[in-house]
Amino acid sequence: MDTPGKWHFELVTNDMMVLYRIKDVVHTGKTSYQDVDILDTETFGRCLVLDGKTQSTEVDEHVYHEALVHPSLLLHGGPGSVFIGGGGEGATLREVLAHRSVERVTMVDLDAEVVDLCRRFLPRHHRGTFDDPRVDLRHADAREYLASTADTYDVIVLDLVDPLEGGTSYLLYTREFYEIAKSKLKPGGVLVTQAGPAGLLNYGECFTAVARTLSAVFPRTYPYGIYIPAFTTLWGMVTAFADSPSASPTPSPQDPDPGHIDRLIGERMATEPRYYDGLTHRSMFALPKYLRRSIAEEQRLVTDREPVFMI
Amino acid sequence: MDTPGKWHFELVTNDMMVLYRIKDVVHTGKTSYQDVDILDTETFGRCLVLDGKTQSTEVDEHVYHEALVHPSLLLHGGPGSVFIGGGGEGATLREVLAHRSVERVTMVDLDAEVVDLCRRFLPRHHRGTFDDPRVDLRHADAREYLASTADTYDVIVLDLVDPLEGGTSYLLYTREFYEIAKSKLKPGGVLVTQAGPAGLLNYGECFTAVARTLSAVFPRTYPYGIYIPAFTTLWGMVTAFADSPSASPTPSPQDPDPGHIDRLIGERMATEPRYYDGLTHRSMFALPKYLRRSIAEEQRLVTDREPVFMI
Amino acid sequence: MDTPGKWHFELVTNDMMVLYRIKDVVHTGKTSYQDVDILDTETFGRCLVLDGKTQSTEVDEHVYHEALVHPSLLLHGGPGSVFIGGGGEGATLREVLAHRSVERVTMVDLDAEVVDLCRRFLPRHHRGTFDDPRVDLRHADAREYLASTADTYDVIVLDLVDPLEGGTSYLLYTREFYEIAKSKLKPGGVLVTQAGPAGLLNYGECFTAVARTLSAVFPRTYPYGIYIPAFTTLWGMVTAFADSPSASPTPSPQDPDPGHIDRLIGERMATEPRYYDGLTHRSMFALPKYLRRSIAEEQRLVTDREPVFMI
Amino acid sequence: MDTPGKWHFELVTNDMMVLYRIKDVVHTGKTSYQDVDILDTETFGRCLVLDGKTQSTEVDEHVYHEALVHPSLLLHGGPGSVFIGGGGEGATLREVLAHRSVERVTMVDLDAEVVDLCRRFLPRHHRGTFDDPRVDLRHADAREYLASTADTYDVIVLDLVDPLEGGTSYLLYTREFYEIAKSKLKPGGVLVTQAGPAGLLNYGECFTAVARTLSAVFPRTYPYGIYIPAFTTLWGMVTAFADSPSASPTPSPQDPDPGHIDRLIGERMATEPRYYDGLTHRSMFALPKYLRRSIAEEQRLVTDREPVFMI
Repeated sequence: MDTPGKWHFELVTNDMMVLYRIKDVVHTGKTSYQDVDILDTETFGRCLVLDGKTQSTEVDEHVYHEALVHPSLLLHGGPGSVFIGGGGEGATLREVLAHRSVERVTMVDLDAEVVDLCRRFLPRHHRGTFDDPRVDLRHADAREYLASTADTYDVIVLDLVDPLEGGTSYLLYTREFYEIAKSKLKPGGVLVTQAGPAGLLNYGECFTAVARTLSAVFPRTYPYGIYIPAFTTLWGMVTAFADSPSASPTPSPQDPDPGHIDRLIGERMATEPRYYDGLTHRSMFALPKYLRRSIAEEQRLVTDREPVFMI
Repeated sequence: MDTPGKWHFELVTNDMMVLYRIKDVVHTGKTSYQDVDILDTETFGRCLVLDGKTQSTEVDEHVYHEALVHPSLLLHGGPGSVFIGGGGEGATLREVLAHRSVERVTMVDLDAEVVDLCRRFLPRHHRGTFDDPRVDLRHADAREYLASTADTYDVIVLDLVDPLEGGTSYLLYTREFYEIAKSKLKPGGVLVTQAGPAGLLNYGECFTAVARTLSAVFPRTYPYGIYIPAFTTLWGMVTAFADSPSASPTPSPQDPDPGHIDRLIGERMATEPRYYDGLTHRSMFALPKYLRRSIAEEQRLVTDREPVFMI
Repeated sequence: MDTPGKWHFELVTNDMMVLYRIKDVVHTGKTSYQDVDILDTETFGRCLVLDGKTQSTEVDEHVYHEALVHPSLLLHGGPGSVFIGGGGEGATLREVLAHRSVERVTMVDLDAEVVDLCRRFLPRHHRGTFDDPRVDLRHADAREYLASTADTYDVIVLDLVDPLEGGTSYLLYTREFYEIAKSKLKPGGVLVTQAGPAGLLNYGECFTAVARTLSAVFPRTYPYGIYIPAFTTLWGMVTAFADSPSASPTPSPQDPDPGHIDRLIGERMATEPRYYDGLTHRSMFALPKYLRRSIAEEQRLVTDREPVFMI
Repeated sequence: MDTPGKWHFELVTNDMMVLYRIKDVVHTGKTSYQDVDILDTETFGRCLVLDGKTQSTEVDEHVYHEALVHPSLLLHGGPGSVFIGGGGEGATLREVLAHRSVERVTMVDLDAEVVDLCRRFLPRHHRGTFDDPRVDLRHADAREYLASTADTYDVIVLDLVDPLEGGTSYLLYTREFYEIAKSKLKPGGVLVTQAGPAGLLNYGECFTAVARTLSAVFPRTYPYGIYIPAFTTLWGMVTAFADSPSASPTPSPQDPDPGHIDRLIGERMATEPRYYDGLTHRSMFALPKYLRRSIAEEQRLVTDREPVFMI
């Protein structure tokens, strides 16, 4: 063990920090919207860090991106059109394009400079998927884009930075935004969003409030969790189905039969996921007791007037 | 945010550290076997730290101890006698004693000084259970004790410190030890052990090797995982059943019916667990794909001659 | 080397931190005025930390306190009465009492709780000097006390915490205060104050402004510097003589003859200083070029309306 | 204050660390001899770090290099030929070339790759002086070079990395080496070496042993100290005069008259030093009492067989 050297510091809570060793700084700078660091690290390989917070790392980004994309795309009957909000690294795009039914993906990320840096410096994240002819990449505010577009989508995937006070994304976690997004879903459509940390120490920051808010807009919502090593915590996501249970032929994501998911992967995906399969899916949707109770008891409804902020 | 102050540093890997803020040092010293720190912290409340590694914290020790104890004791038909190896804080003991069928618990922890410090300084961990008349507390090496005792047990719970080179516990993770332990189980008996980290970054240190080794000794073994905030990683445990599947009336812990576990909790426990229930159980035993594959592919057999060490 | 463990973090600048290893927390708490930590450390022995900033340590407090006290008391003709502002540890008091001519010391420290904690937990700092019959210990604001007392003093020693915004001491670094203090000096009197860091990185925070302000009030002022390991920087002090050069028989502290100081030590002190002697004195008063230039060019005059704050 | 981000960690002692914030990693890699990091930092500007230890920084390298070079070159009667051992950044070279009498400088640095990196990435350190026609740059072991050369020098400046076990430089701090070096001095010649930390906490690591060893080889030796912010400690150097006091017309560097040094600077240097002048010189050579006593009491004689190592 040899502690001296170069380290990245990151707060988990105000009283807890995670440090990981830096090998090299591939890029550091500011875009019009945020600070960007692209780091080569011993533990996590190449990392994208925005405003000091690790967004995704070469070693474990597949865990996050597979968990964000596959449950919703597989439980949808066969999505043809997908909207991605955020997702600058191109890894969400990569996972979406692995679904054979997908014919068109509209990706709207605010920060063209971050996307350019990711295309240049994170090839093992995006693996060239920006060049796929099915992709329509735009640089705009995802909310404004959705509000003004005439298009509709089978699935909307929200791969956003956390809602920080003064940041660019907090209006993408409100009831008003979810109503806009729902209005752009085709029948049988699904929306999924990252929803902040879900660990015992920090689930109350944002996750339960987002889950509660989505459940006020969508007839069926399923919060779930996945442990992301680079975030050093269980992470929360929520998938929301636009149709009512009675109308829907789709099974609940909480169905415990892993064979069902495994069959869907075999039938509908061009590549086999590394992390995700039927049993992994079962584990993700069986939330621990404290989360189920806290979601049930959550009173906060996130609105444009009363947004939620992470620390 | 106010970083200056007093912090506890802990390595997760050689290139990753976790820091948490210390409010007070309740006790610091050396016993005959190890360094002991008892810290009051902002994030985790009161913490027990042995040889610089956090063992359990007031805020999340229930997650660890419930996960270690309840699956094995509930899936056993109704344990009367339980052996605990290690478990100095008294929290494993507390959870074992919550099972109404338990008539006798033999707890063998090597380090009398640590147990005394825990009794004195960690009352919210043990909650007085050391005084329960069912408890027989001994200070000895758990392996030597088991090898020489004429007693047998329904369940053996191994709540040990990690196997460190030069440490006190690495011979409690070997095939030879598991054979001794198995020989002290009554018919239908169950052994469960903590088995080191199970996260994507560190599962190969010890967890898969311990799972493989137990599967060479016991006819049925079930590795499982649980996210422990203070360890900042998924943590591995293995439960091993001494009887063969054909002989056993006990269901597999991988049975996806949460109602079964919830009924057992209601029938057989004097207090309701805080973290553990049927759905939590389902999540714990549905290991992610990388763990199932790595356990299946693991070649290491841990023996006295070729032990496994964590960093 | 073994980095994991317990560490004290302290900012030197916003972009530089010093960490030292904690063995034990002897006391932690809040008084009516400030946060207090008394730490046992590997590098510095027992340390007093106020509001997160190390005030003095067992290993090197003699450097600071001898440097603060002896030049001014020796260059005064033979002080009988001394006023100490601050100085809660009792170490400044200890050094003042080593001068045989001293008949009466009035020590005014705002925070009775800190003084009590120091008396109890820092015996190797004060070495019992609080019990010396020459000492009159008061708990009050040093400025208010001086403004209202009818007493006058041969030497005033200001052993204050740094001027922090919102803190208790910043009005003890202003022209108005220095004028009050000067009015309480007997003829031939001397005032000395600690004046913040004097290193190449941080001399501009406070030191040069304090030096400039004292030179606007006193006819002769001599800034000087001393390297304090626990502060990891050269530290500034200023001694100010109330009489004009022409009137004074006292030599300049910048006199390069170390024998003069050594003789005064032998004649007038009951114990020989550990750190301070004639050559040490010469080094302290020969400021490096950047400090002489910066003091000469300093424009800031610290007043009650425009105080100076350290970070 | 905003602690998260990228930080360089460096040990001062085993129980004390200094951290400074990294803006960018300009270069990181390994040469045949050592790890090299060139960092852009907030506090110190561009920094050269070898084997994890900060060698020199843009903000304060002039303090170190002026202190190393000017006293010896000015107190020599008028050096024409200078040998530099080490000094890869080119900053020692820059200061040597500022002396108008210098006609030839032989610089011998082991690590050609480090020198190339410094030429490329540290232009504000060397300021082009490698291109001065008076310079003869060689890449070899300085000891072997000196042992085998037929040349002799007026001044030898040893700007070496610290003597680390397993490192490249520890045989450049021994009696045997100093005897070789002395034999290559012209009459009236001077040798000066950096000699490790001289602070109250760490002077015993190396400084006093080097001072004692030089005094066994040279008739007149003068240890001195200077506070270097980036090293967070007083730093030790020793200048050694090859001629005996009786034979020498040169004044002692301990002469307290600052005017003498200031006159020599004016007469003999092409550029005025930023940090060094007569009063700075006085301060450097007036060592504090603990250093004078420790040097007088030092028993260690550093030899090839019994070398000295820093931590």
